[in-house]
Amino acid sequence: MNEKTLHKISYGIYIICSINDGKKNGQIANALFQVTATPQVIAVSINKNNLTHEFITKSKVFTVSVLDEQTPMTLIGTFGFKSGKDTDKFKDVSYKIGKTKAPIVLQNTIAYLEAKVIDKIDVGTHTIFIGSIEDSDIVSAGQPMTYEYYHKVKGGYSPKNAPTYSGSSDKKTIQKKEEKNMEKYVCTICGYVYDPETGDPDNGVAQGTTFEDIQKDWVCPVCGATKSAFTIEE
Amino acid sequence: MNEKTLHKISYGIYIICSINDGKKNGQIANALFQVTATPQVIAVSINKNNLTHEFITKSKVFTVSVLDEQTPMTLIGTFGFKSGKDTDKFKDVSYKIGKTKAPIVLQNTIAYLEAKVIDKIDVGTHTIFIGSIEDSDIVSAGQPMTYEYYHKVKGGYSPKNAPTYSGSSDKKTIQKKEEKNMEKYVCTICGYVYDPETGDPDNGVAQGTTFEDIQKDWVCPVCGATKSAFTIEE
Repeated sequence: MNEKTLHKISYGIYIICSINDGKKNGQIANALFQVTATPQVIAVSINKNNLTHEFITKSKVFTVSVLDEQTPMTLIGTFGFKSGKDTDKFKDVSYKIGKTKAPIVLQNTIAYLEAKVIDKIDVGTHTIFIGSIEDSDIVSAGQPMTYEYYHKVKGGYSPKNAPTYSGSSDKKTIQKKEEKNMEKYVCTICGYVYDPETGDPDNGVAQGTTFEDIQKDWVCPVCGATKSAFTIEE
Repeated sequence: MNEKTLHKISYGIYIICSINDGKKNGQIANALFQVTATPQVIAVSINKNNLTHEFITKSKVFTVSVLDEQTPMTLIGTFGFKSGKDTDKFKDVSYKIGKTKAPIVLQNTIAYLEAKVIDKIDVGTHTIFIGSIEDSDIVSAGQPMTYEYYHKVKGGYSPKNAPTYSGSSDKKTIQKKEEKNMEKYVCTICGYVYDPETGDPDNGVAQGTTFEDIQKDWVCPVCGATKSAFTIEE
């Protein structure tokens, strides 16, 4: 058994949204595929601890936004590392209400789908929801962000409730470089790694900026933690 | 509704194998994801018309080979466009028998998984099999082939029984170029498109070779059809 084998499965990165009693919520997911072509049906795996799981279970609808490669870590952080239980994830995010009445995130979205749950299967910590496509459209011409791109180029992690979360071994997928005075810092909240070599250009931190030299009010681009939440990566 | 939306979902390319009564079979699949991390469980969508579906249903085991980017079209053709009902797909292909007794294709494989079916869900034309990982390993350091790579770089199609098959519209995903005397030819059996611009280097046809100039005994790299099965792409 080799735990790294599962890292070889290819995924995209999606925001799955739903509604419940007029409230809206959404979350990052990667475990999504088309299951049949006629009719058009998709499947998505959602963690039972997530608020979106409760919403989909109750409203029986969900939407899928396919994110592009330019998606900033802040958007992934908001939908992937924060809970709708204590955050309004749609504040400052462009979205629209779909035919199913569920919200559809439009920011950094190249395409979206709306689905009605026609079946589901309990798989322990997660439920696989089977959804028939009610509506879909292409929004922009961008390149879909793959999970590999998110890991390698963006330095991103799996949220704890993701099917692909693998605890500390997840860290090892990020390449280590032996550079003196250019140490990497890891966010103790979400696991995001600040790498001076790449900086955080999305948030005004140029390539080559050491962690110490980042402005004081900079926050983790994934989960919003302050600089004090960071420690040197072992 | 925009049919092209579903093309924005990211996938890898896998060979799924199983056994039944001492017979082995395998097929190409792309609809595969990890559903839970603890325990390690995956899900794969398989068309009911495929022999592999019958084998998995009966033996309750399957293996997954993650293919690399160097995978030749012939391997995809054998496992994706031929039926185990009338072909021994394992002839001339390197494989081993796994712990579950099912075969594991090793050719162009970067990693493999063996799974025991713990549940399944009927989704019309397909069944989603839920499998707990019994064994897994990394075989080589290659790059996993993504479905996008297969489409764009290899010029590949979806087999008719794939969840992602979309008939004629599938053709439109391949870029059209307006070049005189460099017309593309499409295989009427499997839909593979011969593009003179890319040639078929895997099989000794250099870039820039017009369809007419390909040697007579050349066959479709995907399904093995002869040159006479090709027509000019509209």
